[in-house]
Amino acid sequence: MISFLGPKGTFTHQAANILGDELIPYCTIPAVMESVANDETDFGVVPIENSIEGPVGITLDSLAHKFDLKIFKEIIIPINQNFIVNPGCKMEDIEDVYSHEQAIAQCREFIHKNNLQPHYAVSTANAAKSIVGDKSKAAIGNAKTVELYDLEILEANIQDTDNNATRFVVLSKDDHKITGNDKTSIIFSIYEDRPGGLYNILGIFQKNNINLTKIESRPSRRGLGKYLFFVDFNGHKDDEIIQNIISEIDENTYFLKVLGSYPEY
Amino acid sequence: MISFLGPKGTFTHQAANILGDELIPYCTIPAVMESVANDETDFGVVPIENSIEGPVGITLDSLAHKFDLKIFKEIIIPINQNFIVNPGCKMEDIEDVYSHEQAIAQCREFIHKNNLQPHYAVSTANAAKSIVGDKSKAAIGNAKTVELYDLEILEANIQDTDNNATRFVVLSKDDHKITGNDKTSIIFSIYEDRPGGLYNILGIFQKNNINLTKIESRPSRRGLGKYLFFVDFNGHKDDEIIQNIISEIDENTYFLKVLGSYPEY
Repeated sequence: MISFLGPKGTFTHQAANILGDELIPYCTIPAVMESVANDETDFGVVPIENSIEGPVGITLDSLAHKFDLKIFKEIIIPINQNFIVNPGCKMEDIEDVYSHEQAIAQCREFIHKNNLQPHYAVSTANAAKSIVGDKSKAAIGNAKTVELYDLEILEANIQDTDNNATRFVVLSKDDHKITGNDKTSIIFSIYEDRPGGLYNILGIFQKNNINLTKIESRPSRRGLGKYLFFVDFNGHKDDEIIQNIISEIDENTYFLKVLGSYPEY
Repeated sequence: MISFLGPKGTFTHQAANILGDELIPYCTIPAVMESVANDETDFGVVPIENSIEGPVGITLDSLAHKFDLKIFKEIIIPINQNFIVNPGCKMEDIEDVYSHEQAIAQCREFIHKNNLQPHYAVSTANAAKSIVGDKSKAAIGNAKTVELYDLEILEANIQDTDNNATRFVVLSKDDHKITGNDKTSIIFSIYEDRPGGLYNILGIFQKNNINLTKIESRPSRRGLGKYLFFVDFNGHKDDEIIQNIISEIDENTYFLKVLGSYPEY
């Protein structure tokens, strides 16, 4: 059984479909994680970052502070946002457009150019559902919702830039065995009273010639200016060189959590 | 004239009030910035980061990609979230709670403990306005909204942690003159094909003994794994040591934008 951030028809649903057919939607990202932690489901699929809008804060925070889950896999999906209307509607009929905050942000130029009034909805799928039957309203979202609610795509690919992709993680109790083309994700906190904390940690990767594929900072919840760092890098935690790097980081940070190793997508 | 992210009664309104009385609310963060860029207003106040929820993406992205504005001042406000109800309501009357996505996220434990159904609103002030007259509904937000809409605080300080503070920036055409206790904010992009890019930049600060007060990564909009870095550090850009640091960073990055120097709050 696979849990995913619902409702049906979202981009997360599309990502979860790649894994299998036994899918259960959950309303929130922590609820997906809880279902895996409680053994209700074997895997949980949640978004972790978007190439335009950045990290999904609640995913990072929940992995850091609330759940001891591992990343088993990553899935990257190109995001194409569509302008969705009731059948037969034309652009000049539309005054209001509904979507999730991130999708609205990804289509700012389109919304501005067409003089539309943006409104936030809880998800792209909820937005599509909310416009059914009202010809002055449109939604922005995944093509899947069009089938679900008998709507039409008036214009496809309306996002501001073409580099729009979302990275999802598949969470489980255990991470993935070594494949030879792997990535590892860790979270750490530096000692703020020691100068050059982050510089010294990055130096450990540098001297071992290990390439970082991601670095994100998040507030550590202990006050402004205090951060957790989320770092992804090439290699598997069962590789000897990666084991040594992880122990050296452990000695030089006061918090370290290994989120696991998994095949690069 | 000072523009701020409205509506009235938000935490940004409270921050803008510290600067003066001639305040004009704007609906969105880019609209606040545009009012300063067009000389409609002299200063614009927007949130830039919260100690629990992290950076305000649209503020960082608009400063990086859309507007050439400077940071003239920073303001830090402790955020106390309140559980707001119609006069005379008790906890057992309430089923639904409305607020901005960030405020809902900041009060997750309170919402869970009291078995409330959370709903997103466009702002904390809109949430308060939307519950007027409905005794089964509550809002989460600033104490100011209670006066504006004749509501009551049923419980104060309901946020999950006590380190909840938001940092606002006051934007203008020019930054602040040197005061002796200043910070400087910059944005840069590293060459991804050169190993150790970020490590080398942090080394420039390290060897000059300059303390970083913030480091944030944001997607550069050129694809997953490509970042802009937002760095704040101690010192004013008119200091000779800071001038040298900025030129050395400029030589080693392919994009650099100095957002300005301003007194530390």
